[in-house]
Amino acid sequence: MIKTDILIIGAGPTGLFAVFEAGLLKLKCHLIDALPQPGGQCSEIYPKKPIYDIPAYPEILAGDLTHKLMEQCKQFEPGFTLGERAETIEKQEDGSFIVTTNKGTQHQAPVVAIAGGLGSFEPRKPIIENLASFEDNGVEYIIKEPEFYRDKKVVIAGGGDSALDWSIYLSDIASEVTLIHRRSEFRGHLDSVEKVQELKNAGKINLITPAEVVGVEGNGKVEAIVVKQGDETFTKPCDHFVPLFGLSPKLGPIANWGLEIEKNAIKVNNALDYQTNIPGIYAIGDVNTYPGKLKLILCGFHEATLMCQSAYQIINPGKRYVLKYTTVSGVDGFDGTRKEAPKAVVKAID
Amino acid sequence: MIKTDILIIGAGPTGLFAVFEAGLLKLKCHLIDALPQPGGQCSEIYPKKPIYDIPAYPEILAGDLTHKLMEQCKQFEPGFTLGERAETIEKQEDGSFIVTTNKGTQHQAPVVAIAGGLGSFEPRKPIIENLASFEDNGVEYIIKEPEFYRDKKVVIAGGGDSALDWSIYLSDIASEVTLIHRRSEFRGHLDSVEKVQELKNAGKINLITPAEVVGVEGNGKVEAIVVKQGDETFTKPCDHFVPLFGLSPKLGPIANWGLEIEKNAIKVNNALDYQTNIPGIYAIGDVNTYPGKLKLILCGFHEATLMCQSAYQIINPGKRYVLKYTTVSGVDGFDGTRKEAPKAVVKAID
Repeated sequence: MIKTDILIIGAGPTGLFAVFEAGLLKLKCHLIDALPQPGGQCSEIYPKKPIYDIPAYPEILAGDLTHKLMEQCKQFEPGFTLGERAETIEKQEDGSFIVTTNKGTQHQAPVVAIAGGLGSFEPRKPIIENLASFEDNGVEYIIKEPEFYRDKKVVIAGGGDSALDWSIYLSDIASEVTLIHRRSEFRGHLDSVEKVQELKNAGKINLITPAEVVGVEGNGKVEAIVVKQGDETFTKPCDHFVPLFGLSPKLGPIANWGLEIEKNAIKVNNALDYQTNIPGIYAIGDVNTYPGKLKLILCGFHEATLMCQSAYQIINPGKRYVLKYTTVSGVDGFDGTRKEAPKAVVKAID
Repeated sequence: MIKTDILIIGAGPTGLFAVFEAGLLKLKCHLIDALPQPGGQCSEIYPKKPIYDIPAYPEILAGDLTHKLMEQCKQFEPGFTLGERAETIEKQEDGSFIVTTNKGTQHQAPVVAIAGGLGSFEPRKPIIENLASFEDNGVEYIIKEPEFYRDKKVVIAGGGDSALDWSIYLSDIASEVTLIHRRSEFRGHLDSVEKVQELKNAGKINLITPAEVVGVEGNGKVEAIVVKQGDETFTKPCDHFVPLFGLSPKLGPIANWGLEIEKNAIKVNNALDYQTNIPGIYAIGDVNTYPGKLKLILCGFHEATLMCQSAYQIINPGKRYVLKYTTVSGVDGFDGTRKEAPKAVVKAID
């Protein structure tokens, strides 16, 4: 059982900043995310896209925003349960909550903050009859660890940036990379498209277009796929089939936690602290809704901060917290580090 | 008469970010500030202090924060009325407001956003009987333009960073710099204290300590000050007397605008859009209060953003605004610039 002060569901920008704000209040956080790395859609969907409306950043790449937020909160030593989806929540007699993931990992905390963005990103899956039976047995929808594919025969399907970028990346790792797309045209960064063309010319990527994967074969695990190209259908041996058709956000199991939901978002009391209808459960960032709500990262930062102040009262009942400014009081990390402004000296001039 | 869409009172971080958010909605802003430069207390009081709780900045100097915010909003060409204090507000028949400064500059706008921080920074003044009669005639409490002191005899009083830093700076510009402090010890950055010691040793700064300025003499303008040192009192000729005893924030004339005030802050409806009890007047950042309010810069950013959305409805009645993401739609500056993410290409691989 993982125990923490604030259990944060969703490791996107809002969740990561909540770790920092909680840390200033000496509260410890643990984050659960269905994606294999922190950063939410900033890292998974558009790491190389510039964002222009992060305050005081005239421009920042979404991936860099994640890195900066990780750097800002790392002194407060957050815990992570990654690649798992928060599935169930149970309120305990002592008022705390136990959250269990789809893989059975259990977490206990007096406060739960849902920072789930647009929901957990679920892969769009091709319609292939027996596909589900090969999941985790050679069929993967997200590449979590490239080394997993070393010296394997990999078939990637898709026509966007993910399919292009992973084909490029794995061409150095896998023994064979085959890229299959239903059109001849790919949609992505010019660099990526050109690089795939180059690797194809060099014989390091097999390209089968326009074509579709229509079947998967194997005994318990993937041994081959069935490809339909024009009027022909043929079998191609491989160890892994990775369809990268994009991720689509789903509120998922959280929708069944008894929270008030409106337009696929969780209603909160923004007049106070972004708490939901269940005391002790907060919703911050894009996942919540209230009158005037804007789904902007900078709003999530504010909501995370007010949530932490309110959570402090639940975790330390009766204790009064006086807001300290970091410019004045500095920052004491849980890892023993201390940041502070250079102190003024008092010194005679003679 | 200066006309604009949103008249922002206070050019600190919150006011500057409001310019950016308003610009995304194609609304133009003009800012009034009592200080001689934008940035509020970040620029005037602690430009070299690190702040640790600006989201995605593990550390940023307050002065740099101002520069980043200025850079982020400059494409939306904000107007500035600096070194003047907003004094009166009058509602017009057409629903707009006219705001007049202490120097008589008039501004008209359908929306006023008060982003006044802790108030306008008023200098702490020494108690010298006839001091007021010399104000702007040789007595200044803030140094707005160092060149104003070229080849003049300047007396600075004070024992903190401002007194130290301006003595150093003016030692190259003024014909004579005298620093007077009631103690021998100064309180400031070690560098500054050591630099003043060095300039004093080199004869470029006169130091009179421990001593106090107890009188000002002159016919219409400053000609000399009276100094008390121990039991002795003497007269010292000079052109300017600049007491730098710190700035203390005062809500000032805004307190008489008919706004609901609570604990020296303006009450707003945070459940919606940070509007005050007077429709069309908003209060954002440290100047406002509501249940759960935290006086943090990052909260001001959020409040500024929601304010702009609400102001849009006042300025464009009946028009529906659909939030656009800068990652998707880019940013079109009023100066003709355009920022946008690199477009994906659609390109065949053969």
